[in-house]
Amino acid sequence: MGSRHDEWVARDAAVVWHGFTQMAAYPDNSPVIVEHAEGREVIDVEGRRYLDAISSLWVTTLGHHVPELDEALRAQAERVAHSTLLGHGNVTTIEFAEALAPRLSVDDPHLLFASDGAAAVEQALRIAFQWWTNAGERGRTTYLALGDAYHGDTIGALSLGAGGFGTDVYDPLRFDVVRTPGYVDPHWDDAAVAALDAHHERLAALILEPLVQGAAGMQITTPAQVRRVVEHAQALGVLVITDEVAVGFGRTGTLFASEQCGIRPDLAVVGKGITGGYLPLAATAASPKVYEAFLGPDLSEMTLYHGHSYSGNALACAVGLRHLQLVDEWEVLANVRARAAELEVALAERIIGRTGVAAVRQQGLMAGIELAPPTYGLRWGRRVCAAAVADGVLLRPLGDVIVLMPMLTTTTAEVDRIVDTLARALEQVCAP
Amino acid sequence: MGSRHDEWVARDAAVVWHGFTQMAAYPDNSPVIVEHAEGREVIDVEGRRYLDAISSLWVTTLGHHVPELDEALRAQAERVAHSTLLGHGNVTTIEFAEALAPRLSVDDPHLLFASDGAAAVEQALRIAFQWWTNAGERGRTTYLALGDAYHGDTIGALSLGAGGFGTDVYDPLRFDVVRTPGYVDPHWDDAAVAALDAHHERLAALILEPLVQGAAGMQITTPAQVRRVVEHAQALGVLVITDEVAVGFGRTGTLFASEQCGIRPDLAVVGKGITGGYLPLAATAASPKVYEAFLGPDLSEMTLYHGHSYSGNALACAVGLRHLQLVDEWEVLANVRARAAELEVALAERIIGRTGVAAVRQQGLMAGIELAPPTYGLRWGRRVCAAAVADGVLLRPLGDVIVLMPMLTTTTAEVDRIVDTLARALEQVCAP
Repeated sequence: MGSRHDEWVARDAAVVWHGFTQMAAYPDNSPVIVEHAEGREVIDVEGRRYLDAISSLWVTTLGHHVPELDEALRAQAERVAHSTLLGHGNVTTIEFAEALAPRLSVDDPHLLFASDGAAAVEQALRIAFQWWTNAGERGRTTYLALGDAYHGDTIGALSLGAGGFGTDVYDPLRFDVVRTPGYVDPHWDDAAVAALDAHHERLAALILEPLVQGAAGMQITTPAQVRRVVEHAQALGVLVITDEVAVGFGRTGTLFASEQCGIRPDLAVVGKGITGGYLPLAATAASPKVYEAFLGPDLSEMTLYHGHSYSGNALACAVGLRHLQLVDEWEVLANVRARAAELEVALAERIIGRTGVAAVRQQGLMAGIELAPPTYGLRWGRRVCAAAVADGVLLRPLGDVIVLMPMLTTTTAEVDRIVDTLARALEQVCAP
Repeated sequence: MGSRHDEWVARDAAVVWHGFTQMAAYPDNSPVIVEHAEGREVIDVEGRRYLDAISSLWVTTLGHHVPELDEALRAQAERVAHSTLLGHGNVTTIEFAEALAPRLSVDDPHLLFASDGAAAVEQALRIAFQWWTNAGERGRTTYLALGDAYHGDTIGALSLGAGGFGTDVYDPLRFDVVRTPGYVDPHWDDAAVAALDAHHERLAALILEPLVQGAAGMQITTPAQVRRVVEHAQALGVLVITDEVAVGFGRTGTLFASEQCGIRPDLAVVGKGITGGYLPLAATAASPKVYEAFLGPDLSEMTLYHGHSYSGNALACAVGLRHLQLVDEWEVLANVRARAAELEVALAERIIGRTGVAAVRQQGLMAGIELAPPTYGLRWGRRVCAAAVADGVLLRPLGDVIVLMPMLTTTTAEVDRIVDTLARALEQVCAP
């Protein structure tokens, strides 16, 4: 009978198309209609509070409604919300780029900004491609990308991706890549090295997510394997692009996952946590070796003719700058490592071995609990998350993998609560 | 030595890669380093004020630092900056979608949000493609797109685009389309109709910018020609996508250019002015005929597996909602039409026929002044704009086309000043 929640869901479904969402089933899949948020909780239209254990889909780092970030937003609004970066500059964008550049794993980078992470991936793949044509080499028309890879939803990013979520339907629009197994294969590095040896002369670049393939269901590899493949590519002259959109900004326990691997990519893509989850912003970082190949006469074909209207948006950069300071001031990375250790223990004690659980994978504060329904199509992922939502913890699955993505400032008590809630939900759905 | 301006330019060039910019020439091309902005002026690091006659690259509509938009931003920050739209909803996003939907030229649309305009174009091309596969028809693997078209910089958008700015270097990554002449050809509609007749059985969609091909140098056509081609496509069953990123939100004198053409596209893409130039936001609107083909069983392949992390960002939607109200409250469209009429007279009296001017094209408050350098490579576009910038009016060319893109709230005096400044700059560069 028309609760406030039901009314809002109906209004929502009448006019908004939600990404990665079957809209016919949307109203029945426990949607939370957020009206406001505080700290690590979102609050719905009926005042119900949910612990946001997916960080609003992997973007929120410190929390919602953070006074310091709100103040940075207000202060920038008093200066200028946005001015174009096409041929002109903005003080706030420069200040943010100066703060971020030395923290990235790319040497002395130049930063090209976009707003969607997929667009920043496209920037990287275009830069890598044109880097070769600027050098006069025309045969470098493909990429090495991994099995189960996901790099975003635009056609270029989708081509680098492995066609998951049924997106191989778009094959006629996707360009070809050399594909080798992803991290689910413990020997993925052998295959990648062999493919590099076989195909390096036609590869513009190698792209990978260091340490964790997120959308693949939190598939994890070792730093040594990433390093081996990256260094092999670079030794052969193939450019290396790291996609740190999901694993960047502290999520894995270091500011960027490349640090743990000891690699220095030629290009890196960052997004999601870059503004602490406040505003759309993404960036492509390029090393001097890459950047300098684009320098030439004005209006010449050496130029990168790529740019988005809101590139380097001042409001987003102001929040990004303050966020980067707070990560240090609050010693957020130390918290990630401490809470990740607690999460590991809790998952080992209370989740691994439970009926319905096939595997648990974790790197820092990103974890995937893979379920094993006895028969296909039981929608366990959906139902476990729905049970958790009913219990006040916001979760969203990747198929039958339950994703735990607590915010980087999460507490011991919250880790405990998330795991307890998950255990109850698993009991309810998988072992009733 | 080293003015404050020079210092900032050096800091900028050391770490920021500007889109569509030859960075080797950047410091010499009169960059304005914006520190703050007020109304229709941006103010640089030395306190110099510039009338922003390009609307910060076609995005700013009402002005910079608009108290009402600033307040909307602050109020939303008190609620929540962002919460995910993947499987969940946000009150502010819903309210904005409800306000925007009836204003679009698409019937009863559902809105899928992105942040970069190119990403919203990619959403449209993917939706059109999958619409056919969901219907079981697999041969609809290409698009009809126009000569000189520009739809953004990601690989899918770049494929729909005509390879301008030297981007045909990316041909090995671009998918094929059926290409017919753009608006520069007065009979472009004949060619498009013929191509539709010849190829409709393999076309997923037709895409065009209604009335004006912006990045092509403000190439303009008539509403009747657009209507003829769109209606012919729809009669043949080909979906129609309008790209209103540049021409939308009042720029041409109506809220959307499709209104003047009397067309009802199946899909429309909007961006740029959607937040008044404050924040990255873009949207793809789909008619019920399109949308309903994606409804099916949960987790089924009928679903659109596409979604950006910051889709439907609450801060951007809050600003977008207030902006849409202000466009009505301030009767902005009436101002656009009145000032456009004045601009037309001023260009006729003071620019057309001037030495170096080949053509003047205008639709609403978007105009292109095409220069005709006597020999190739004189960089007249650059030099005319540099002269205007030195005179306090911010301009940026498209090659040898000078773009005039005043804000929608511009005044009679400002129109006069822009044209006067341009006349002086032309005199200085083209007829010294």
